[in-house]
Amino acid sequence: MDERSLHRLIGTIIAPERLEDDCAVIPCGDRLMVASTDMLHETTDFPAGMTDWQAGWMATAVTLSDIASMGAAPGQVLLAVGLDKPERLRGIMEGARDCCTAFGAELVGGDLDAHRELTIVSTGLGTVAPERLVRRRGARPGDVIAVTGPLGEAQAALNGYDRHRKELLEPQPRVKEGLGLGRAGVSAMMDISDGLALSLHDLLAVNDCGFSIDTGRLPLPAGVPEDEGRELALYGGGDFELLFCAPPGILPVPGVEAHVIGRVIVERTILADGKPLDRRGYLHEW
Amino acid sequence: MDERSLHRLIGTIIAPERLEDDCAVIPCGDRLMVASTDMLHETTDFPAGMTDWQAGWMATAVTLSDIASMGAAPGQVLLAVGLDKPERLRGIMEGARDCCTAFGAELVGGDLDAHRELTIVSTGLGTVAPERLVRRRGARPGDVIAVTGPLGEAQAALNGYDRHRKELLEPQPRVKEGLGLGRAGVSAMMDISDGLALSLHDLLAVNDCGFSIDTGRLPLPAGVPEDEGRELALYGGGDFELLFCAPPGILPVPGVEAHVIGRVIVERTILADGKPLDRRGYLHEW
Repeated sequence: MDERSLHRLIGTIIAPERLEDDCAVIPCGDRLMVASTDMLHETTDFPAGMTDWQAGWMATAVTLSDIASMGAAPGQVLLAVGLDKPERLRGIMEGARDCCTAFGAELVGGDLDAHRELTIVSTGLGTVAPERLVRRRGARPGDVIAVTGPLGEAQAALNGYDRHRKELLEPQPRVKEGLGLGRAGVSAMMDISDGLALSLHDLLAVNDCGFSIDTGRLPLPAGVPEDEGRELALYGGGDFELLFCAPPGILPVPGVEAHVIGRVIVERTILADGKPLDRRGYLHEW
Repeated sequence: MDERSLHRLIGTIIAPERLEDDCAVIPCGDRLMVASTDMLHETTDFPAGMTDWQAGWMATAVTLSDIASMGAAPGQVLLAVGLDKPERLRGIMEGARDCCTAFGAELVGGDLDAHRELTIVSTGLGTVAPERLVRRRGARPGDVIAVTGPLGEAQAALNGYDRHRKELLEPQPRVKEGLGLGRAGVSAMMDISDGLALSLHDLLAVNDCGFSIDTGRLPLPAGVPEDEGRELALYGGGDFELLFCAPPGILPVPGVEAHVIGRVIVERTILADGKPLDRRGYLHEW
């Protein structure tokens, strides 16, 4: 059984439309609050050689990326830490604080627990004007499909391409880009944490249209042979770029790197170079 | 090293006043939002014999209790679940949803992860009018000290008093009570998750006064010999009652059970029957 099968089960227990986006959306005065929670733990999420500071940074970056993908501005982060060794706490908290500071958020609290395996759950809150909120649903045939930067870099580092270690260990959530794209009026957006192919399938699940990409246009990780790079860009996990759809006239958006990789189509399918694209990538398995 | 020593370390990394309360406080239009996150896991938090439904209920109750302790109304809950076995998910989610429904909150999302040991992190959001927010800081000499119900019941169940199993396994957060006490204008409040003695020491740490209780006035768990009951009421963990201070004229508050157990004093100390009260109770240890 994989994560997405379990998500379907959850859709029978809580309102399914609540599960469509990277964040929950909550009324907050005349603005909207978005909220996201993410669990990471040592075995599956923290690569060998990662420092405690980097673990704290990454746990925070993951939730800030979710906030960015809604077009929202990050506000507060809470961190629940299941600590295996107390001496790790300082590095983790400093990494989380520094990531918050770098992206305009504040670390405001959390919880501590003793745990056999280091486990960090970050919860992020952000705000956005209602007209600037971007959801996964909203793509329209004729829109371009684009991403904010090279794909597959984190997976490239895991495959031994050390020049990409920094992207793997100290990921940069696309906060400025998410805000710019929300302001510009993109039609649908999400972050690509489990690989481009799975993300496109996630968009397919909530939109009444399809997505056709041209793998020749994918921004690939530097220094990796092209065939391997394309595989990593399609199916590698750990990227923090945003994937979005937009009416063609909107691009370029000032200050936002955007690589057009395809087009939204009427037929409800995912095509890569005209052929169906596998639904595979990074999934938790039990 | 224990949890509270690590909290002091955290106070050197993030604003210490952020750590004083059960929830973080965040501006939200003309109201305030409160946010709390709590990590529970099988070994230390879920008693033997607890069902998955009860684990989901308890994880949710813990965060709703934090919200109640600020005088706020619960709004939304996010649940991050580190699952050891996929077949446990349905029960956990249904327990969380049912606890939300019972107390006027909505389960709006979360995250799923595969984990060796069942780990649940609940994050709760609530709102409150600024003038009704209650913090741990605010007690004044002359205030009465009170609790909303019997103490030590959860620990009594762990000690084998089966009549208290329901209080242990299906705790009831004091949401209605917290709202009523916030409206009435109590001066300081928190929930008693780690025992009365530790909670009083937590109040001492953030107030410029002291706390004197009369152990003869403690509401004890039914069916437990008095000496043991008093020990459980002072030092047992797992209770979900609220501890608060209030000007004497405020009580009784309509619809809120309140047991006066002592009085706020000028001297910065904790006294039980006139003698210093140990700072002990439930603490995570590494």
